[in-house]
Amino acid sequence: MATTTAAARRARARVEYDAFLKSCPTNQLLDRISDKWVSLIVSALAPGPLRYSELNRTIAGVSPKMLTQTLRSLERDGILTRAVTPSVPVRVDYTLTPLGLSLSHLLSAVKEWAETHIEQVHEARERHDAEAQAAGAGAGAAQKE
Amino acid sequence: MATTTAAARRARARVEYDAFLKSCPTNQLLDRISDKWVSLIVSALAPGPLRYSELNRTIAGVSPKMLTQTLRSLERDGILTRAVTPSVPVRVDYTLTPLGLSLSHLLSAVKEWAETHIEQVHEARERHDAEAQAAGAGAGAAQKE
Repeated sequence: MATTTAAARRARARVEYDAFLKSCPTNQLLDRISDKWVSLIVSALAPGPLRYSELNRTIAGVSPKMLTQTLRSLERDGILTRAVTPSVPVRVDYTLTPLGLSLSHLLSAVKEWAETHIEQVHEARERHDAEAQAAGAGAGAAQKE
Repeated sequence: MATTTAAARRARARVEYDAFLKSCPTNQLLDRISDKWVSLIVSALAPGPLRYSELNRTIAGVSPKMLTQTLRSLERDGILTRAVTPSVPVRVDYTLTPLGLSLSHLLSAVKEWAETHIEQVHEARERHDAEAQAAGAGAGAAQKE
């Protein structure tokens, strides 16, 4: 019965939830997953499980505090599982759940978009800054007249 | 010639850029687009152009300062264009560029993921918190013995 209720709730979800609304819980969830560290952690785990130390090495620039905090939050949200092997030293493996795997396809695509479109973004910025400078020089010349 | 160079640079992009590296410019771009407001603005513009006031109404909860700031940054990045019609009052329209449109497909999918999986996330949180409480109670009982 509990499964039916959960399935029914999920079926209704498409219609009832709207992340555009601040009061909607999906707005908070979107905020949670719209995060560079979430994106990188979930993308890193897409090919398969990794240990804490491997994640730390893959995601260069993440502080241990931020990595631990984000992993705990993703574990609570059901995106990944944490398995501790009581060896010496203790071994900790992180694995995406099916829910996390479905998210990883999307976040990996966003990461790839950044990697394949960075040049176009740089060109747009250069164009924009040159135009802004030209407009500023034009305004300056107009003021002198 | 300039077009060829840009195309060649883009062809290389897939191989050379890696958002996992902090020093890579794509890491900063991923940070930029991994943002709830970017996600909501780009998703809102996916069906077609909107005026400033329409965006403000669609994205409930965004402050005018945050909306203006994010729109300016997306304009500079070549994600959208801003067109001013000198009417009374002045009319300002925002339209996704082809670059922005390619991003909007991905960010709309992430927004939809949040809307369709929020129930599963809530269930995972409830399970996690119940288990943590049970573990805490177990530890408490063990201490009493």
